Amino acid sequence: MHTPVASQVLGLASVVLSGVWMGHYHGGFAWDGSEKEFNLHPLCMVLGLVFLHADAILVYRVFRHEPKKNVKLLHGTIHLLALIISIVGFVAVFDFHRAAKIPDMYSLHSWCGMATLVLFCLQWVMGLLFFLFPVASSWLRASYLPIHVFSGLVLLIMAIGSSLLGITEKLLFSITLTYSTFNPEGVLANVLGILLVCFGVLLGYLITREEYRRPPNPEEESLSVHFKTLTEGGSPTTP
Amino acid sequence: MHTPVASQVLGLASVVLSGVWMGHYHGGFAWDGSEKEFNLHPLCMVLGLVFLHADAILVYRVFRHEPKKNVKLLHGTIHLLALIISIVGFVAVFDFHRAAKIPDMYSLHSWCGMATLVLFCLQWVMGLLFFLFPVASSWLRASYLPIHVFSGLVLLIMAIGSSLLGITEKLLFSITLTYSTFNPEGVLANVLGILLVCFGVLLGYLITREEYRRPPNPEEESLSVHFKTLTEGGSPTTP
Repeated sequence: MHTPVASQVLGLASVVLSGVWMGHYHGGFAWDGSEKEFNLHPLCMVLGLVFLHADAILVYRVFRHEPKKNVKLLHGTIHLLALIISIVGFVAVFDFHRAAKIPDMYSLHSWCGMATLVLFCLQWVMGLLFFLFPVASSWLRASYLPIHVFSGLVLLIMAIGSSLLGITEKLLFSITLTYSTFNPEGVLANVLGILLVCFGVLLGYLITREEYRRPPNPEEESLSVHFKTLTEGGSPTTP
Repeated sequence: MHTPVASQVLGLASVVLSGVWMGHYHGGFAWDGSEKEFNLHPLCMVLGLVFLHADAILVYRVFRHEPKKNVKLLHGTIHLLALIISIVGFVAVFDFHRAAKIPDMYSLHSWCGMATLVLFCLQWVMGLLFFLFPVASSWLRASYLPIHVFSGLVLLIMAIGSSLLGITEKLLFSITLTYSTFNPEGVLANVLGILLVCFGVLLGYLITREEYRRPPNPEEESLSVHFKTLTEGGSPTTP
């Protein structure tokens, strides 16, 4: 359990650091079209698209001995929360841009961030259709699962990458002349970036390690899809 | 073979675009401490730390039916080339900074990039010691292999992430006022960033797909380490 605990410490530290950066160095938060509304953007993205996104993935590893249906519901619910918070973060920056007459969607950060959010929405809807509603056949579910898992990890890495791009942009806009003097805000934001990288590496490790995978459970297998059996031969009709 | 071919197209397009960006928009290349020396930095990093690094990983997938010893040598040689080109790219930027009296190592890009290069050197030396020289025992090799593979992919993603940070930095420094007007240089560099992301996703897909893995070969197993046997019990003494 040490690695999951370490991941939570890193993830929470990243969220706190985003809050401190925007709260202490940029005047805090508001919903009024001012820079204080922009400040919600970094906080919401790190909390929603990075931390909660990652935790929604982790529930399958941490609660690997709990009933699958409960874990699935928890996975979908945390993802929904992640999605709502991310959308608030997106609206915040577009709202601020409109009020300040700043153009949208010209930077690499905005391109990567938008791609991540759109694909994240798609991934959530596809997950809902395939795994929570009894729409897809067992064969379809089994075929889609590895794509869903791979895409989830790719989107988490893209979210972290977009966050680092956002950190760099914000620093070069707000402390243009003092960033190179190792001023405290620059160092704090760089540390936030490094924490996010470490968080991503730990998550990647946790997700790909066999020992954290859900062990096979014969009782579940009669109720749910057993992918190994499916791909190797038999095809149960119960989803 | 479609996915490996697509990855080569994306990788080469990224290298070409880096060259065009620096060649066409920033006056080309030289080794004289001027901005033309800096221009070698993006080109060398994308060529060495991203494209060649990725191809060194890919040889195990593309030449999965060739003798393992040859593939191993090719893997190490491409990595050595990647390392040399990356170091040239690093020297170029430090040299330019010294001549222009620009401080070093203050930005998130420099922190991430330096961490990637240092760990990449370490990974190469460890790989050499563990897999090319008969220093490590079979047990040590088998234990280190999954770490080596995981670290290789993490370092490739870190190299791509650092490149995107570098693209953002360079654009905000050089086209500060026109980036937001969708000027051609900005769009070209953004497209380079998106190509690098797609390259990374394709590589991740190729590396994690079972069908591209090296198939077990009984002849090799008597000469080389058979990891499955090792971890499950027996421990052959021949490396």
